[in-house]
Amino acid sequence: MRGLMQDRPLLISQLLSFAGTYHAEREIVSRTVEGPIHRHTYADMERRSKQLANALKRLGTSAGDCIGTLAWNGYRHLEIWYAVSGSGMVCHTINPRLFPEQIRYIVNHADDRYIFVDLTFVGLMEKLEAEMPGVKGFVIMTDRAHMPQTSLKNVICYEELIAAESADFEWPEFDENTASSLCYTSGTTGNPKGVLYSHRSTVIHSMMANQPDALGLGSRDVVLPVVPMFHANAWSIPYGALMCGAKLVMPGPNMDGASIYELLETEGVTFTAAVPTVWLMLLQYLEREGKTLSALKRVVIGGSAAPRAMIETFQRKYGAQVVHAWGMTETSPLGTLGQLKAGMETMSEDEQITVQCKQGRAIFGIEMKITDDAGKELPRDGKAFGNLKVRGPWVVGSYLKGEGGQVLDAGGWFDTGDVATLDPAGYMQITDRSKDVIKSGGEWISSIDLENAAVGHPGVAEAAVIGIVHPKWDERPLLIIVRKPGSNVGRDEVLDFLKDKIAKWWMPDDVAFVDELPHTATGKLLKTKLREDFRDYKLPTA
Amino acid sequence: MRGLMQDRPLLISQLLSFAGTYHAEREIVSRTVEGPIHRHTYADMERRSKQLANALKRLGTSAGDCIGTLAWNGYRHLEIWYAVSGSGMVCHTINPRLFPEQIRYIVNHADDRYIFVDLTFVGLMEKLEAEMPGVKGFVIMTDRAHMPQTSLKNVICYEELIAAESADFEWPEFDENTASSLCYTSGTTGNPKGVLYSHRSTVIHSMMANQPDALGLGSRDVVLPVVPMFHANAWSIPYGALMCGAKLVMPGPNMDGASIYELLETEGVTFTAAVPTVWLMLLQYLEREGKTLSALKRVVIGGSAAPRAMIETFQRKYGAQVVHAWGMTETSPLGTLGQLKAGMETMSEDEQITVQCKQGRAIFGIEMKITDDAGKELPRDGKAFGNLKVRGPWVVGSYLKGEGGQVLDAGGWFDTGDVATLDPAGYMQITDRSKDVIKSGGEWISSIDLENAAVGHPGVAEAAVIGIVHPKWDERPLLIIVRKPGSNVGRDEVLDFLKDKIAKWWMPDDVAFVDELPHTATGKLLKTKLREDFRDYKLPTA
Repeated sequence: MRGLMQDRPLLISQLLSFAGTYHAEREIVSRTVEGPIHRHTYADMERRSKQLANALKRLGTSAGDCIGTLAWNGYRHLEIWYAVSGSGMVCHTINPRLFPEQIRYIVNHADDRYIFVDLTFVGLMEKLEAEMPGVKGFVIMTDRAHMPQTSLKNVICYEELIAAESADFEWPEFDENTASSLCYTSGTTGNPKGVLYSHRSTVIHSMMANQPDALGLGSRDVVLPVVPMFHANAWSIPYGALMCGAKLVMPGPNMDGASIYELLETEGVTFTAAVPTVWLMLLQYLEREGKTLSALKRVVIGGSAAPRAMIETFQRKYGAQVVHAWGMTETSPLGTLGQLKAGMETMSEDEQITVQCKQGRAIFGIEMKITDDAGKELPRDGKAFGNLKVRGPWVVGSYLKGEGGQVLDAGGWFDTGDVATLDPAGYMQITDRSKDVIKSGGEWISSIDLENAAVGHPGVAEAAVIGIVHPKWDERPLLIIVRKPGSNVGRDEVLDFLKDKIAKWWMPDDVAFVDELPHTATGKLLKTKLREDFRDYKLPTA
Repeated sequence: MRGLMQDRPLLISQLLSFAGTYHAEREIVSRTVEGPIHRHTYADMERRSKQLANALKRLGTSAGDCIGTLAWNGYRHLEIWYAVSGSGMVCHTINPRLFPEQIRYIVNHADDRYIFVDLTFVGLMEKLEAEMPGVKGFVIMTDRAHMPQTSLKNVICYEELIAAESADFEWPEFDENTASSLCYTSGTTGNPKGVLYSHRSTVIHSMMANQPDALGLGSRDVVLPVVPMFHANAWSIPYGALMCGAKLVMPGPNMDGASIYELLETEGVTFTAAVPTVWLMLLQYLEREGKTLSALKRVVIGGSAAPRAMIETFQRKYGAQVVHAWGMTETSPLGTLGQLKAGMETMSEDEQITVQCKQGRAIFGIEMKITDDAGKELPRDGKAFGNLKVRGPWVVGSYLKGEGGQVLDAGGWFDTGDVATLDPAGYMQITDRSKDVIKSGGEWISSIDLENAAVGHPGVAEAAVIGIVHPKWDERPLLIIVRKPGSNVGRDEVLDFLKDKIAKWWMPDDVAFVDELPHTATGKLLKTKLREDFRDYKLPTA
């Protein structure tokens, strides 16, 4: 028997209508690529997004078309998100940090019809234009006065494009499973793969993201997503803010400490989110300048593991509560968030921070388990670590155009490629990537734990651990080190340093020294390259 | 183009699995009908709900069957909710405050197969059993020691029923549009009508209910729903608490001030919700006993309008923030909530409370407008009042078995039957029921405003205003008054008292005095009866 409630689809355009109606005067403050701070309101955004929707129609685009963006977080990028998805088209946020050949690949793979480009990236597009024949035009996200000289053909000025249009537009209604947006994984192996979000997945994800145990966004919040809109939907913040009417502060291209600090203070930001690198820059700036944070209440740290010292500094020195989060492009991205549970308020601050160093608890909607390689579920005891698998309405079902084949198992679970523990309280901790974990005699050794231990040595600048084939144990760890300038630390000293920090059987079988380690476009350690470089390496124990 | 995210249904059983996994040790504390306080955990609840699901199977029930409950808020009632809906059946929460003939009607109309009954209501079922031939048995919600002597046939003891079963049960997966639960309107005219919720509507509604701008429930909250589970899903609290892992405190049958106070204090309740009558009892108790509230942070008041003095007393005297809310069985029920918006923190306390006296702002997901009788949308200026219409995924689409016919207009809007204003900030205020508003010469007069003004007179115990046919103005207001004991206030004195309180043309054309006013089973003024009684009344102005 079916329920008899209204059959209303969940659509992204409803977020904009809601904000435009109930929070019409609430501000969106953007640092622009052109320089000045720009201020307008949700009412303005609604009007301009409708103008843009009319413009897109006039450009000849239609439902299902992909529209690319190469842009920082700003009010125009927001308008594009809502106008494109709201019109039934797919907003493809291109990560400008990908290698140019990857950008060319994904633009062609997604079949982008138009690309909206911030001034910053016009040069990049000029270089690639000839190899992206499907792109019919480039909309430069600026006004006439700031239009650049460019070799790009069919260039359109954003402000002129929308100024020519009426704000009279009715958002179409359609199936909530319609594709809304597209984001490619940065992909350490092979070509990037596209994750195609739907209106349903996006709205449901945002509903859960706003809850007190997740980001906790409300209308009185002032929200600064430093995490870019091309990085997994800026963790849902540009949706969640409209869902509740929070003031939005957009950092534009400037993510240095001074720029972020200025916005935090002058706009009274209560909530912000970014990767550890950004927070490192901010904390260094605060320290150097002797500044304090007056309004900030909550900082989300995700994208990679938050160092303990960072959590401590934000909370103890600056009075901002840290929420450590984990997710991935494939999970929209929110999977777990490190809000403390009831009862933990009586823990010591140190114990609380130990909990916060884990990646957090799953929010409702995300089912999560860890398994061994045979798919057997492992205990949630905080010790066993296994392949982290997730399932839920905002988790990827398959990649665009079927790349990578069937990515769910028979039970519908997606293997995240992470290796993690789950503790009895529900907190998850990433211990490795599954392709990097070292499988020694049937037991698993975390390459990340070994790396973290090794970089504790004062002479070590960077460390990587990979598995090397071993006749008896299948694999054994090799520690690869970049020395700090001036250091001449050697093999035995490093191994000796590790002795009381790791399990005995985790001890690397050898140490290699290199001048630098390979990284991906987005700064991740490129272990595939390392494994290739060390393919023929012979361990002394072999 | 469809998105490529996982096609996972939103199901109520997932809430229980989530709470059982991530908040296994979190408590559910219930005042029992038998007397003592009962304590157990979400892990216990999950286990027992699965036992009950197995028991329901053994009783021969199957997907789509309706299972009735006549019960207070308690742990067994919770288990029944989740086991019944989780199994794909429909949990029909029967409001024991309906007249017995209404209960008989809805049990038969819904075709309830079994009824789960608290000890309180065994006598009521005995009286009705013969007229409810479709009911195959009655499960008494107690243990063997407390089983009553009863004339009911096929009586089952709840604790024995589940003790016989294994806790090994896999919640089935099915379409999220499957019916989950059923609640009848109390209905001032005609028979009660059934609102049939779906898993989808219930889960989405709870997702929005938990947001900071709505109920704001998080894992560290301790939540006491005084509002009964048979009253529009207890405003989603028994779902929302599991969605975040809040501790649940259930009041059982005792809603008097002393009982509620005891739970608030001994359990450290941070959040509670009920109708004004309950809060009146609590506030009187606090006043009488000179007590304070030590843990309570937020009080939701809904079901009928919260008096200003009640809001003031909770906030000023007891330090608990009031959230005034509006909704109805047909809206799951949450429609609007009176959280203050950004900027309002600089208002004076009096101005803030004036905002809070309105019924609140719509939450995302609820579209809302006011229209005149021709369906034309009226301005959101806080002055114009019109028929309040709503639309959204947790709003009724049609009543069970098509009762009442087509209830949505061509645009999919549901007419709430309320008359309201919407102000520019988005706050809605109920001014009347649409069938009670007096239409005088094309203009509308709020019967509620007149009644509120009239009861301000010290000699007036209760007041009702109805429209009486008038040859020139179509309708004019008649004020009907119940005097306070000992009062002999007369017509002219009352009208004189109203002079500076209402618009001149709103002045009632006459005053009638009666000994008592008619009410519905749930205590609402029964104006249909009044209109009948005064059908032939001649106004002096006619």
